[in-house]
Amino acid sequence: MSSRPTIGIFDSGFGGLTVMRSLLALVPDANYVYLGDTARLPYGSKSRETIARYAVDSLRFLESQGAELFVVACNTASALALDALEAEAKIPVIGVIEPGASAARAARNEAMQEAAATDLTSDGVLVLATEATVQSHAYARACAAHGLRAFEKACPLLVPLVEEGWIDHPVTEEVARIYLAEALVQAGAQNIIPHTILLGCTHYPLLQDLFECVLLKHFADHDPMSILDSAEATAQRVKQLVAERFSSTSTTSTTEPTQKFFATDSVEKFQRLGSRFLGCPIAYVQHVDLGG
Amino acid sequence: MSSRPTIGIFDSGFGGLTVMRSLLALVPDANYVYLGDTARLPYGSKSRETIARYAVDSLRFLESQGAELFVVACNTASALALDALEAEAKIPVIGVIEPGASAARAARNEAMQEAAATDLTSDGVLVLATEATVQSHAYARACAAHGLRAFEKACPLLVPLVEEGWIDHPVTEEVARIYLAEALVQAGAQNIIPHTILLGCTHYPLLQDLFECVLLKHFADHDPMSILDSAEATAQRVKQLVAERFSSTSTTSTTEPTQKFFATDSVEKFQRLGSRFLGCPIAYVQHVDLGG
Repeated sequence: MSSRPTIGIFDSGFGGLTVMRSLLALVPDANYVYLGDTARLPYGSKSRETIARYAVDSLRFLESQGAELFVVACNTASALALDALEAEAKIPVIGVIEPGASAARAARNEAMQEAAATDLTSDGVLVLATEATVQSHAYARACAAHGLRAFEKACPLLVPLVEEGWIDHPVTEEVARIYLAEALVQAGAQNIIPHTILLGCTHYPLLQDLFECVLLKHFADHDPMSILDSAEATAQRVKQLVAERFSSTSTTSTTEPTQKFFATDSVEKFQRLGSRFLGCPIAYVQHVDLGG
Repeated sequence: MSSRPTIGIFDSGFGGLTVMRSLLALVPDANYVYLGDTARLPYGSKSRETIARYAVDSLRFLESQGAELFVVACNTASALALDALEAEAKIPVIGVIEPGASAARAARNEAMQEAAATDLTSDGVLVLATEATVQSHAYARACAAHGLRAFEKACPLLVPLVEEGWIDHPVTEEVARIYLAEALVQAGAQNIIPHTILLGCTHYPLLQDLFECVLLKHFADHDPMSILDSAEATAQRVKQLVAERFSSTSTTSTTEPTQKFFATDSVEKFQRLGSRFLGCPIAYVQHVDLGG
């Protein structure tokens, strides 16, 4: 019997599959159980109490599926329900916000070591996220705990553009340019000069190449900005935790690691859109009803 | 005591306020009660049973507020729950889809009278709507009942663009151009040559001027297409019903007509975004809880 860890991943939709995509590269030998609470999305417009209740439902479900780690691959739930989840969980809980802020801090340290002349004002981070995440100010708090000043910019059109499949599209490039230009002016008004752009939404990793391109084409006169995403940062954190808590069993396992996908709404839509986020086909999605 | 009619208007959000906007111009002397079920939107991703249950909750609430007519100013609920509502309602129920199809038919009759040489193939209607409305094919059925052939095109980016306030924006113009170009090619492949564009989403009336401009700039070589919207068509239908069922009391009323607004989620957001859809400020919104 294999003792490889089973990692539970939860999101309100399929955006969290970008976290799983990063995890599959970093921790390929784990079993994965993914739950998309698609029937009750979007979480962004709901109250803290409702979101906490939904997230705890999902925790219970993934625990019942054998999860030994619970990854909250949803920015809204990480911002509003992490305390409730940690209070209820029998297993470690990892959200996406703290790892994102921590990665921004590490990137700044690295940049300051590289630059001989340390620019001590370079404590600025530009966080791009959904309106709900921005309104929670969870990234600003997490960044402040790392000595960074965050300007949080809501980019409500990016999720629909990604879901429309316009990943590498002139319209999306123009929208990204507009949001970035607005954000830099607004951040500048608060004396925040970002040296890092933190993609604070699980949909946005699909736009990383586009943002790199927009920076090169339209913001070449700005101080260099590096682009980080919370999905990758969270996967790194999970890898670390797995290394600490679970002895490697990769040499003794005789079975293939498993991947299970559950959705609370249309499995067809999850399969079709989800494959784009995971970066590989999703063979089978099971429907599960978690209530209204 | 005034006997002016009280018109109840229901939508999953604030898009239905475009129907109310048209109604205020056509039936200014009525009382209005508007309910936006914002806590449970979007309806588009939910099952027929769930949507019917939500819509009936809203009907009950508006009946309790004295509504004597129930306007379903929501395309998804009109497409999926009109039967359930008509079965449950003690008052007349009017959806947005049949009036839209009927207006398209009237426009075609008018165009054919104007053109001496009747082009008998001109039975095409291009319906622009959300993905959920398109998947229901409710417009295609309603148009077919009027002898029209509809091509239904999902335009998922238009609602977020309107909600971002990019009503008169180059990005929105380009998105509209792309959707129209795709739709005309796809419709053409089915031998449907649209002479009418029917805006089948309550958000889209805010884009009517933009669509007119896109037609002029980019589709000047296409046969002329007129643009209709279901919101205006529905308001016309309500006006007719009010004239039939309620004797005019405008000369005897001594009180001002009233307008009440209810939302199931944030009243602040409803007030802010809703004013844009109604075309005038919304002074006061009351919160109401219709359950989970």
